[in-house]
Amino acid sequence: PEAASPAVDLSGYTRVRQELVAPPFAPEHEQVATGGPKIVEITLETEERLLTIDEDTGAEIWALTYNGWVPGPLIVVHEGDMVELTIRNPVSSMMEHNIDFHASTGALGGGALTHVFPGEEAVLRWKATKPGCFTYHCAPGGAMIPYHVCHGMNGAVMVLPRDGLKDRDGNALSYDRIFYIGEQDFYLPVDEDGTYKTYAAAGDDYAESIEAMRSLTPTHSVFNGAVGALTGENALRANVGETVLMVHNQANRDSRPHLIGGHGNYVWESSFSDPPLTGMETWFVRGGSAVAVLYTFEQPGVYAYVNHNLIEAAILGATAHVVVEGAWNNELMEQVVAPRAF
Amino acid sequence: PEAASPAVDLSGYTRVRQELVAPPFAPEHEQVATGGPKIVEITLETEERLLTIDEDTGAEIWALTYNGWVPGPLIVVHEGDMVELTIRNPVSSMMEHNIDFHASTGALGGGALTHVFPGEEAVLRWKATKPGCFTYHCAPGGAMIPYHVCHGMNGAVMVLPRDGLKDRDGNALSYDRIFYIGEQDFYLPVDEDGTYKTYAAAGDDYAESIEAMRSLTPTHSVFNGAVGALTGENALRANVGETVLMVHNQANRDSRPHLIGGHGNYVWESSFSDPPLTGMETWFVRGGSAVAVLYTFEQPGVYAYVNHNLIEAAILGATAHVVVEGAWNNELMEQVVAPRAF
Amino acid sequence: PEAASPAVDLSGYTRVRQELVAPPFAPEHEQVATGGPKIVEITLETEERLLTIDEDTGAEIWALTYNGWVPGPLIVVHEGDMVELTIRNPVSSMMEHNIDFHASTGALGGGALTHVFPGEEAVLRWKATKPGCFTYHCAPGGAMIPYHVCHGMNGAVMVLPRDGLKDRDGNALSYDRIFYIGEQDFYLPVDEDGTYKTYAAAGDDYAESIEAMRSLTPTHSVFNGAVGALTGENALRANVGETVLMVHNQANRDSRPHLIGGHGNYVWESSFSDPPLTGMETWFVRGGSAVAVLYTFEQPGVYAYVNHNLIEAAILGATAHVVVEGAWNNELMEQVVAPRAF
Ligand SMILES: [Cu+2]
Ligand SMILES: [Cu+2]
Ligand SMILES: [Cu+2]
Ligand SMILES: [Cu+2]
Ligand SMILES: [Cu+2]
Ligand SMILES: [Cu+2]
Ligand SMILES: [Mg+2]
Ligand SMILES: [Mg+2]
Ligand SMILES: [Mg+2]
Ligand SMILES: [Mg+2]
Ligand SMILES: [Mg+2]
Ligand SMILES: [Mg+2]
Ligand SMILES: [Mg+2]
Ligand SMILES: [Mg+2]
Ligand SMILES: [Mg+2]
Repeated sequence: PEAASPAVDLSGYTRVRQELVAPPFAPEHEQVATGGPKIVEITLETEERLLTIDEDTGAEIWALTYNGWVPGPLIVVHEGDMVELTIRNPVSSMMEHNIDFHASTGALGGGALTHVFPGEEAVLRWKATKPGCFTYHCAPGGAMIPYHVCHGMNGAVMVLPRDGLKDRDGNALSYDRIFYIGEQDFYLPVDEDGTYKTYAAAGDDYAESIEAMRSLTPTHSVFNGAVGALTGENALRANVGETVLMVHNQANRDSRPHLIGGHGNYVWESSFSDPPLTGMETWFVRGGSAVAVLYTFEQPGVYAYVNHNLIEAAILGATAHVVVEGAWNNELMEQVVAPRAF
Repeated sequence: PEAASPAVDLSGYTRVRQELVAPPFAPEHEQVATGGPKIVEITLETEERLLTIDEDTGAEIWALTYNGWVPGPLIVVHEGDMVELTIRNPVSSMMEHNIDFHASTGALGGGALTHVFPGEEAVLRWKATKPGCFTYHCAPGGAMIPYHVCHGMNGAVMVLPRDGLKDRDGNALSYDRIFYIGEQDFYLPVDEDGTYKTYAAAGDDYAESIEAMRSLTPTHSVFNGAVGALTGENALRANVGETVLMVHNQANRDSRPHLIGGHGNYVWESSFSDPPLTGMETWFVRGGSAVAVLYTFEQPGVYAYVNHNLIEAAILGATAHVVVEGAWNNELMEQVVAPRAF
Repeated sequence: PEAASPAVDLSGYTRVRQELVAPPFAPEHEQVATGGPKIVEITLETEERLLTIDEDTGAEIWALTYNGWVPGPLIVVHEGDMVELTIRNPVSSMMEHNIDFHASTGALGGGALTHVFPGEEAVLRWKATKPGCFTYHCAPGGAMIPYHVCHGMNGAVMVLPRDGLKDRDGNALSYDRIFYIGEQDFYLPVDEDGTYKTYAAAGDDYAESIEAMRSLTPTHSVFNGAVGALTGENALRANVGETVLMVHNQANRDSRPHLIGGHGNYVWESSFSDPPLTGMETWFVRGGSAVAVLYTFEQPGVYAYVNHNLIEAAILGATAHVVVEGAWNNELMEQVVAPRAF
């Protein structure tokens, strides 16, 4: 940093450790903060791993990840807390990594202070002064920024207001579960015969990836790292009457999520310091943003949660399923006459 | 449905039939509801028809439609009403169809309950619990979803608040006319010589269409089914002093409508349960949404209504005209000096 | 105009001349209007010039400009003022030009009244009735509209509320500086060997440009006319504690600006007649819009201001730098442990 700064008085903070969990789940947390502000300690490992992103075609990519997951884990704190991150780059890595937290202030979101080469670690502490859901991502510089982000190296922080979520009139809102969805655009280079190319190690696809990215047209747009990662056995689950907070992160490219058969009852596209939008059919994720959407399920059945560019949903992979159990409500919808010949 | 549900008591509802009309017009309706809630009966036929989408090039597509129109007809009800739809698939059809109403709750928006093969019909009733403009569209499953939607099979429902539209302060807003505009992205396969391919029957272009869609780049983006469908003889019409509600549906792809020479005085991008945005130059349609925009014309002349990606407007087709009659107001704008040599 | 109109009484207005300045700067203006409404006289020359848009590759375009700048100059007035524009097309020009002000009402935003051929001038007066930031651009008709706009012929007008900017609760907001950023999508035709084509004169690239535009995929997306126009020696500058109003214009294509390491404290995506959004990580510019964003710098250092489609930022050119001086605040962020081997 450019100028000397007095030491920070941390005596008012309680130190806690947040155990990060794999998406689509959220770490344990309070919705309304109790006690004073906290220093929330977390650890992220910059893991490079070969990831199959579509089992049907065998398409694979040397994913760049935080903790091995695409997206990186959801971090949850309250406004006024501090995040104290240890970032570690394993010796086995091929590349340099760092992290830029959109929720933080200064030094390129921490990117300037966290460049770790293979075998290095760094510790960064920043204060969560603004409530909302925010993207974080690797940003090593220049064209390496979209390269790392489009190889999976991004995730989200949720900074809750200390007194929890509120509607436009100030009434408290709460949730029974969180679905944390990271949408990832991949740009896989293809062979002359149109098949996706494979590479021996992380970074080997650099030049061809950059060329593929220039098209601004992903070959894949998937939730949680792979086509079908949130369908079938891995479908999301809820019950009628339960309220779910859907946190959707897209670190690079616009998206427009939609819950088929449901709605966004409360939608925070901007931040938690603005009143939520309500009753939405389809909401918007400005590329490089995380949003939060609250919905209370009213009907059982299988819902599809999609990027409502339906080409991206059904052909490029951006579809998840939510299996909801409970009693059907014929008042909301009734099949008066099942399909029959006329 | 998964669980038995008690029969619904419909005794409090009055049954009415809504005669649907061709776009860009709206069916007869009240802006403020009188009397109690209604069951609004409508019929949609899933008609497959060869449609010329650009007379200049002769580009054509086997459009998949509701009632023969692209977009499908505008349905107008009030919050608390029920929609009772009869969906019929003619024996002459080549394909299975169904319908997903973004305005409804459960069963994939009714999609799971309305799969009709050629020669079949079904009846679905659902309650309009959320006010706003909402897309509906065919969603037969998998890649057939974008295929049907991008062949024209989509439209909009407007669910008005029972007491009508309001500004941010709760003051009543009303309109003199509705312009209902459906923007349609088409992805026409091209021959080796670059001409648009033609096909013998609906569905024959399936594999090549899916390939074309992967580009995420439409060959055409048109209003109401064809280049020029709302210009010249078919231009929209209004008078100075009249207030028009423009309902814009885009079931698949983001759009950003703009009225050249006018504004969006009140813009509902999210729903009618949120205060409208005001004084906008260009508004946003999240792909898979319908929006409503209120404008009172202040000047006569020919307005262009466009998708303000001007490439899409002027090259791909997304332009309509509005011919407005009345007296010019030099206070708002005056040509002080007409073009002259200097 | 279609109908005779009584002469306008201009006696209540004071005439002033606004000297327009090159981007990224703003002309002298009051944030809160003093005195009565004004007639603000401005002059725009439609200058065609060969512009190098990327020094590394030598990529160049016959830019179509207002006053020689891409974007055209920022115009600042207050609600209730009139803009009186003299538009002049030099004799040396190859093409016809005009101007469409999104902020104005009628005659295609003035486009219908300002068609000037080489050697012609015209004068247009219009009243700024709606507060907000608004795009202006050339719109000669048909495919010439995207052609001119995508050759740089666009800029912004800021119409301030007479009593200045306000937060959601009506508290006054002000700024110390303006950064005026025009984002420009260019679609450069390429040779068979993939190099950008060059042309002898403005307009010579017409047919090939239109073909390139059909891809909807720009070859360049730059701030203020060229890759690196706002970095290095030309970086934007501010101090810790200063509040900057960032006005971002994109006349054709959606954008999603982000200030790396900072935020949008107050964001007016729609207009100044709506409450600003707050605490945003990334905001949205509907293609064909100008937006305003207020931020108070809290940390020194080099910030990057980007279109957060990071491919567009880092590969297509949409990156600016802001150099901020002042004292580092370790409470907001501290590098607890600099990168070290573990
Ligand atoms: Cu990285
Ligand atoms: Cu970022
Ligand atoms: Cu269908
Ligand atoms: Cu849908
Ligand atoms: Cu021009
Ligand atoms: Cu325009
Ligand atoms: Mg598959
Ligand atoms: Mg800050
Ligand atoms: Mg966010
Ligand atoms: Mg034509
Ligand atoms: Mg519901
Ligand atoms: Mg809607
Ligand atoms: Mg360069
Ligand atoms: Mg007006
Ligand atoms: Mg604007």
